[in-house]
Amino acid sequence: MKPDFGYISLSGKDNPRVKELVRLRKERGNKVFIEGTRLCEDALESGVAVDRLIFTEDRKELVSGWYGLFECLKDGCEFMLVTDDVFRKISSTVNPQGVAMVVLEPDIYDQETLALPSDGSGKDVYLVAEAVQDPGNLGTMIRTADAFAFSAVILLPGTCDPFSDKVLRASMGSVWHIPIVKCNNKDDLFVYLNEHGISSYAMHLNGVELDEGNLSLPAAYFIGNEGKGLSEETSSRCDKLLKIPMPGKAESLNAAAAASIMGYVFSRKRD
Amino acid sequence: MKPDFGYISLSGKDNPRVKELVRLRKERGNKVFIEGTRLCEDALESGVAVDRLIFTEDRKELVSGWYGLFECLKDGCEFMLVTDDVFRKISSTVNPQGVAMVVLEPDIYDQETLALPSDGSGKDVYLVAEAVQDPGNLGTMIRTADAFAFSAVILLPGTCDPFSDKVLRASMGSVWHIPIVKCNNKDDLFVYLNEHGISSYAMHLNGVELDEGNLSLPAAYFIGNEGKGLSEETSSRCDKLLKIPMPGKAESLNAAAAASIMGYVFSRKRD
Repeated sequence: MKPDFGYISLSGKDNPRVKELVRLRKERGNKVFIEGTRLCEDALESGVAVDRLIFTEDRKELVSGWYGLFECLKDGCEFMLVTDDVFRKISSTVNPQGVAMVVLEPDIYDQETLALPSDGSGKDVYLVAEAVQDPGNLGTMIRTADAFAFSAVILLPGTCDPFSDKVLRASMGSVWHIPIVKCNNKDDLFVYLNEHGISSYAMHLNGVELDEGNLSLPAAYFIGNEGKGLSEETSSRCDKLLKIPMPGKAESLNAAAAASIMGYVFSRKRD
Repeated sequence: MKPDFGYISLSGKDNPRVKELVRLRKERGNKVFIEGTRLCEDALESGVAVDRLIFTEDRKELVSGWYGLFECLKDGCEFMLVTDDVFRKISSTVNPQGVAMVVLEPDIYDQETLALPSDGSGKDVYLVAEAVQDPGNLGTMIRTADAFAFSAVILLPGTCDPFSDKVLRASMGSVWHIPIVKCNNKDDLFVYLNEHGISSYAMHLNGVELDEGNLSLPAAYFIGNEGKGLSEETSSRCDKLLKIPMPGKAESLNAAAAASIMGYVFSRKRD
């Protein structure tokens, strides 16, 4: 027996509601357009606030199953059945899967008070990404921070959109599990870190070789841009510049690889 | 003063030599087609055997500089000046940079004797990738293994081409620094590991939680496919199944992230 859900049905490509979806995918504001079974399920499992769920006739049964399974779909979500033609228009992929959602970006950061999320353990770890440009790298970092139960991923200016398709895909659902803090004001961030006794570590090729015994918690560790590394301005304000010991020929590690290694190191430190 | 180098000049797109280059890019055999200043320089710095260097008029000066700088260009390399039209034909990129090379794939593996490269320290570490499909992940793994001075990266069947453009790019030149061993026969590999006292560790979600004190060297650690992980067949033949402790919500780590963390752990172990 299928659970019932009401839906509206759209077939015209010039319908204003369809046009709005196309616009939303491109200039998303605080709404995130998600496409495809896997990415939608990742978000649904985390109980995100779903604004609209768009599907084709082929996907009616799947969506009906979701409706029975996920409570977040019962809280004001609008269901839109569209023709294949309309779906192709709103989709950004070559082979649209016939199901998409508009969800609200999680609102987890209060720029006014700059209260970072904390797990209350006194051993919070924050991963701070500055100008990380590759969506695969950012998604991997978010997934790593989630796997190690860190308190937040903090994004400094220049970092790519954490809710783009590619980041969603690389994060494997982790963007919905761990708070993502977009921080536009570095001054505020460093004031907060200092006031709360959170040690700040810059991963930097001119840093001292990592000695795990010298790390202290709570901690924020900073990873910079893939090509240029951390900016001088940011790294000079951190308590310490650290470098992962590399006895081989490669001059540096991939940004997400370095973030993962340090994630492991800090996670062990919390035991 | 510019060093002299002789070159042939080609302008016809139907020239057999041009057609051969196009074919070579697609079905490369043991020759690797590399495009762009950065990737070419990475390879040249490592002293690869260059078969042909193809360039446009605009790049003559750059190539002349390389000729003065890199000895490997003096050892039988053929220089080919081509028109912009011809370059566009042989290039696989939208904005060709006007310089490309054909280099010989490093021949580092003797399938007959299966002698793995060793650094003679008795503490060799091998990173084994099985069916790793994402070129970015494979390139990152190779870069990490190079950074930690491991003895080789071993590729089991199903793994993507380590000399494709995307892997070259992600590896940042490391494919030319560290031996890449393509192993088509897993039986041979496990016989070799056993005979040489090399411990084999499978990274596996059903493994026991990593305890660094229990690891022994020399070691080979196995990383599986992005979606499916290591095959049962492979993991069942490893000495131990290991899992990186993950207290958070993400069920797993990105393959390259896991490879990097284990790389760091093994590298520290060698100190």
